[in-house]
Amino acid sequence: MVTHRIALIPGDGIGQEVTPAARHVLDTVGARHGVHFTYDEFDWSCARYHETGAMMPADGLEQIRQHDAIFLGAVGDPSVPDHVSLWGLLIPIRRGFRQYVNLRPVKVFEGLPSPVRTALPGQVDLVVVRENVEGEYGEVGGRLHRGFPEEMAVQEAVFTRAGVTRIAEYAFTLADNRRGVLTSATKSNGIVHTMPFWDEIVAEVATSHPDVTWRAEHIDALAAKLVLDPTRFDVIVGSNLFGDILSDLTAAVAGGIGIAPAANLNPEREFPSMFEPVHGSAPDIAGRGIANPLGAIWTAALLLDHLGHAEAAAEVEHAIAACLAKSPVRTPDLGGTANTVEFTKAVLEFA
Amino acid sequence: MVTHRIALIPGDGIGQEVTPAARHVLDTVGARHGVHFTYDEFDWSCARYHETGAMMPADGLEQIRQHDAIFLGAVGDPSVPDHVSLWGLLIPIRRGFRQYVNLRPVKVFEGLPSPVRTALPGQVDLVVVRENVEGEYGEVGGRLHRGFPEEMAVQEAVFTRAGVTRIAEYAFTLADNRRGVLTSATKSNGIVHTMPFWDEIVAEVATSHPDVTWRAEHIDALAAKLVLDPTRFDVIVGSNLFGDILSDLTAAVAGGIGIAPAANLNPEREFPSMFEPVHGSAPDIAGRGIANPLGAIWTAALLLDHLGHAEAAAEVEHAIAACLAKSPVRTPDLGGTANTVEFTKAVLEFA
Ligand SMILES: CC(C)[C@H](C(=O)O)[C@@H](O)C(=O)O
Ligand SMILES: CC(C)[C@H](C(=O)O)[C@@H](O)C(=O)O
Repeated sequence: MVTHRIALIPGDGIGQEVTPAARHVLDTVGARHGVHFTYDEFDWSCARYHETGAMMPADGLEQIRQHDAIFLGAVGDPSVPDHVSLWGLLIPIRRGFRQYVNLRPVKVFEGLPSPVRTALPGQVDLVVVRENVEGEYGEVGGRLHRGFPEEMAVQEAVFTRAGVTRIAEYAFTLADNRRGVLTSATKSNGIVHTMPFWDEIVAEVATSHPDVTWRAEHIDALAAKLVLDPTRFDVIVGSNLFGDILSDLTAAVAGGIGIAPAANLNPEREFPSMFEPVHGSAPDIAGRGIANPLGAIWTAALLLDHLGHAEAAAEVEHAIAACLAKSPVRTPDLGGTANTVEFTKAVLEFA
Repeated sequence: MVTHRIALIPGDGIGQEVTPAARHVLDTVGARHGVHFTYDEFDWSCARYHETGAMMPADGLEQIRQHDAIFLGAVGDPSVPDHVSLWGLLIPIRRGFRQYVNLRPVKVFEGLPSPVRTALPGQVDLVVVRENVEGEYGEVGGRLHRGFPEEMAVQEAVFTRAGVTRIAEYAFTLADNRRGVLTSATKSNGIVHTMPFWDEIVAEVATSHPDVTWRAEHIDALAAKLVLDPTRFDVIVGSNLFGDILSDLTAAVAGGIGIAPAANLNPEREFPSMFEPVHGSAPDIAGRGIANPLGAIWTAALLLDHLGHAEAAAEVEHAIAACLAKSPVRTPDLGGTANTVEFTKAVLEFA
């Protein structure tokens, strides 16, 4: 029996409802594979911000540094500006724990039709590998002449050789272990300085992965191709901004962001990695117990995989696919009448 | 009889084939509306670059400054790096002539099925208004420690109050003249400095357009919504990068970038505006006379409209729609067997 210690941050809104679903799946499937989980729960959230003025305590990162993994439900509430809630919790964890890979698998499942005609079940199976700690989303920038006609705002995108190399290396290695096809999102025809640099490093990393067929695609054309013919992609690697856009876009191609999972990985395991479904806190349906738990459950599978339990992870993914294909039980967002607990139970019946 | 002087830059590849189609349409439809066109043709292109070392002469902008409008076919060839061909021709014209609006209408036509299930003919009719001269695509940036492990590349995104105000003003005015719905692409939760500034100015401009219903949407979620439900959009305004991505994405939702038109506008008319179809030079099919001319023809309609001939413009757009709906004549990319000249003729039969 191996035991893992998980830091659980349910967060806001439906984060509170889908986190127990993920936990239930981890416990049930884990037990069958000799894996035991213990949980420490943290109330870091917008609610906490209203009470204490901070999304998490000043020593928050210290409190979870020794855990084997972090599970985060969802963060955000209309009463708190997004940049406060995100820069107060999500972003410090991603950056402080060097979670430089944001991994987002996308699949079209039987029983969950895609809005895109050609995206038939089983035909779309891709992973977006997003650079998660540098690039366009940085802290370098500011404003000048505030309030005057000559006011301006600047934002520095910073790409480092180390940063681009490690994300490219991760993506090529993943492609080596999948179908061997990689697409690098770029815009080297438009943005002058950073994207040709990105292209150069990706091409360098490619030389040590001779079995991967890869190409660079400009982000505008790539976005179009993902709608016109999503079936031909395997691994897509992109900068922080491009990866952000592409992961939501590909999730939509697969039917919506309601079931999409994400992992923020520190591949070197110097720090815990963080697992969070892609969906937000959904204040409009929060508190009614009807949130779709599939994003959280699939995210739990990524957590299992990261901790070395590939078989258990595959079992969870298989259960999601089988349940969607065979069972009418589902939450209202997918056209059913089940609640979160019932849908979770239905999935586990296929595990 | 009014006469307009057009600077014609056919450019590379299929640019040479679709430009005559646009010209044919301008002449034919113009004549009926008492509009006469004269053309000065310029050989600015990658071919010229190979002969002379420059995409256009040093005084290129001077040569076309007095024209009423510029029509550009397509620029680019595999033998010339994109950043050379683009920064040697397209970008200097956009920036030198303060063409700060990049306008890209998108429609789903009967007879040209969309890859997106819900995008039924007549249901998608939107315009992307892209900021075209500042923002993320700037000349400010560079590299440090070239070739060493500590190498980095930086790119400064610069947003000015004047630049954001004028593009927002253009977009809101356009929305006032259409269905009165505007979406502003943002990412104020992620990028710290520039996007909240963008949001603030858009909100300020909105106050003088009380009849427009508008909202800001984060670029990642917006990209997803454009696939999940493209029918609810009217005017979408975005920064240079966001507008670039969204215009290709929306064109794909409408069936591909093959028919998409674009206008680079200097609304103050200090300088000529430039009209260019969205598609590239398509070296793979160039020289065979089978390029789809619809992008160029629709672009000619935008040119007519800009020069004050709204009725003639509407006639061209109507002819495109009617031809697609009623005639089997079309180029191979749309499943037909016609060549460029035949397809152009077929469209004009509906004008
Ligand atoms: C080719 C490139 C520089 C250009 C741009 O990004 O502006 C193109 O993508 C476009 O949209 O016109
Ligand atoms: C909320 C936001 C800061 C975040 C991001 O852009 O990283 C989100 O869009 C995501 O993709 O996880």
